[in-house]
Amino acid sequence: MKVVGLVTEYNPFHNGHLYHIEQARLITGADCVICVMSGNFIQRGEPAVINKWARAETALRCGADLVIELPVAYAMSSAESFAYGAVKILDSLGIVDFICFGSESGNMAELDFIAGILAEEPDEYKALLRSELGKGASFPAARESAMSRYIRLHTRRAGDFDASVLTESNNILGIEYLKALKRLKSNISPVTVRRIGASYNSPQMSGEISSATSIRKLIEGNPFPDRWENLSGALPLASRQILEREFAAGRGPVFPKDFENMILSAVRGMSPGRLKDFPIVSEGLENRIKDAAEKSGTLEALVENASTRRYTKTRIQRCLFHVLTGITASDANAFTARGGPLYARVLGFNKRGKSLLSEIKKVSSLPVIVKTADFKNSRDALLRRMLELEAISTDIYVLAYKKAGFKNAGQEYTHGIVRVDI
Amino acid sequence: MKVVGLVTEYNPFHNGHLYHIEQARLITGADCVICVMSGNFIQRGEPAVINKWARAETALRCGADLVIELPVAYAMSSAESFAYGAVKILDSLGIVDFICFGSESGNMAELDFIAGILAEEPDEYKALLRSELGKGASFPAARESAMSRYIRLHTRRAGDFDASVLTESNNILGIEYLKALKRLKSNISPVTVRRIGASYNSPQMSGEISSATSIRKLIEGNPFPDRWENLSGALPLASRQILEREFAAGRGPVFPKDFENMILSAVRGMSPGRLKDFPIVSEGLENRIKDAAEKSGTLEALVENASTRRYTKTRIQRCLFHVLTGITASDANAFTARGGPLYARVLGFNKRGKSLLSEIKKVSSLPVIVKTADFKNSRDALLRRMLELEAISTDIYVLAYKKAGFKNAGQEYTHGIVRVDI
Repeated sequence: MKVVGLVTEYNPFHNGHLYHIEQARLITGADCVICVMSGNFIQRGEPAVINKWARAETALRCGADLVIELPVAYAMSSAESFAYGAVKILDSLGIVDFICFGSESGNMAELDFIAGILAEEPDEYKALLRSELGKGASFPAARESAMSRYIRLHTRRAGDFDASVLTESNNILGIEYLKALKRLKSNISPVTVRRIGASYNSPQMSGEISSATSIRKLIEGNPFPDRWENLSGALPLASRQILEREFAAGRGPVFPKDFENMILSAVRGMSPGRLKDFPIVSEGLENRIKDAAEKSGTLEALVENASTRRYTKTRIQRCLFHVLTGITASDANAFTARGGPLYARVLGFNKRGKSLLSEIKKVSSLPVIVKTADFKNSRDALLRRMLELEAISTDIYVLAYKKAGFKNAGQEYTHGIVRVDI
Repeated sequence: MKVVGLVTEYNPFHNGHLYHIEQARLITGADCVICVMSGNFIQRGEPAVINKWARAETALRCGADLVIELPVAYAMSSAESFAYGAVKILDSLGIVDFICFGSESGNMAELDFIAGILAEEPDEYKALLRSELGKGASFPAARESAMSRYIRLHTRRAGDFDASVLTESNNILGIEYLKALKRLKSNISPVTVRRIGASYNSPQMSGEISSATSIRKLIEGNPFPDRWENLSGALPLASRQILEREFAAGRGPVFPKDFENMILSAVRGMSPGRLKDFPIVSEGLENRIKDAAEKSGTLEALVENASTRRYTKTRIQRCLFHVLTGITASDANAFTARGGPLYARVLGFNKRGKSLLSEIKKVSSLPVIVKTADFKNSRDALLRRMLELEAISTDIYVLAYKKAGFKNAGQEYTHGIVRVDI
């Protein structure tokens, strides 16, 4: 039996995701697909449009066999940390043969070549990066320039490779997966599927393969599924049905704006000193965020006012959702010191996934969590903390629901595993 | 020139308040009326329905000459601390001759007799109080029973006085004003006006004098001033006009429910240990509040679930708004240790109030704040903190406004004094 792992967000699940699952099976010949998926908050530093259990169900109804949660401290972090957390889980399961990721490039040799340089970080590359950062560029822009200069200076094959792959978001994540595999000396073989259709961040709908961003925009403008003429073509039936069901029940759609007042009140009531407790708030960024929260009446304005060329909007938004969910720098540092995620928490499975899970339990180097309540009193304090952050994030996420009856806390410990009878 | 001071909330200003001002002038023969008024949060532990500047303007247009703010740490606290803070300010101004308060009793001798016992706290009274509290009664209920027993045991005039005055909220506040006057050895003479019309907490509208509670209820059910047939008879024209203007602008009406998600997210993200930092959270109350925040999807349910016979709903709600505004027990203790409010902050005045202010500036034992920005860098750290808490409360209060343009922070430092040309 061959197993392929995917790292996903499914926010929401669309035809591009369906294509990715199909291609992963096709290219690798795998029998089983495991998704490591963000929970209720995602990498852009915002809430998912529907909750993680509904998204796991969609994935299972659209071809995944087993869905495992990426803990929120990793899900809502930099591309590097996000990718490392996800690959660490896949590697720890002990039964994953491949990782298959989408990329704009589709050229594994090129991506791996660049990942190699970033993983090794030769002194000269580091010096180039420092020099670019010194010019005030954002980290991604500085990295691309430094890489470009390094390639020109040092490789015979410079003509073959192009640092501009570092400008596209799926390439960047792909390179981070490759780096993580190297760092973990993992036996998992990477493969990549070239993305088709609209690019990741495109705000435009474009036929059958549209970006998740454009789909969310359309939902925000029109939260009535029966009037989604444009959307239907872009979503598998199961995804559309589950979105409809969740919205009708009053559990979404959830948007960053739903947390606007919670974030503004939290930041306004907090001293710059306490803001510094949160990851990636440093170098005076705490004062920028504080000032922006004073002069901004909306979340959008706050993000806009706090961002600069160096501190991108995504980075600011991620900071703000860390403040909201209480994930501090000392949490992040403690997790890093222990080497990453401390458990593999199962969100759902189908029949094939269930058998796979029995295999995993035998060989996994991380504890496998099926019933979260069983781990509430784990003797491992850091594991307890990682799980507690997950629970708090969910307790805050549900406050965006429209129906008061669904806003109770503690769902992290009471919500059942998603089982799909396929 | 004679000056009478009133302690007020005006949430919102109604005909009963108009009667109070008129009677205060009539009974004392005063030329000038000074109101010490709660700011954006009030004694019940909730936001005021419109902001403090609009309420100050109403007061000035309805007969007050000068409005001074009761700092939020005192405004949103127990009857004892609320009354002490307000009387301390009136006393410090150095020109106030009378304090005039409404009471259900209207009998100054009786109120003063009971205030005397509460101020002295004879050992035997204290023992009786402890014994009543030991039975699990709330503090107000225990105090009434203990007082009743003490009067029966110890006074010849027991037949004349009745501890049941301690059941009515305006009597309780009145007694606290009298206690504060004694404690401060103040020269201010107290007078009381018997309240007419509906009682303080009555939810029913009843003709020309209706309770503020019933008026807020009516506004909450129908926030369209042009359809307020029932309300018009209960409000002076100026009050109705200002409410209309504020609502039309998108600055209210503000209700506790507007802070529901901010409070739920703050409490859910907070450890019971940190909850203990807030005033009157102790003896396991932190766990009750934490548990209630988990199982409650609304603020109303949270207050209901956390309250007991001993911890009343008002007390719970006050705790929650302390958490929201970040007023900690160590703030409250530091202010108490320094003897109460550290400044007299002017919210507004009319012509007569302006001349009065010149007099006050000459004799006041507290700094008089007209322009708050001037005190942002005061050398008195505790004064700065008191003012900062006011600013943060306002920064959070404005998040309940409907129009984003009014939700900016910093209004505490930029909003002008209210000047009424009468």
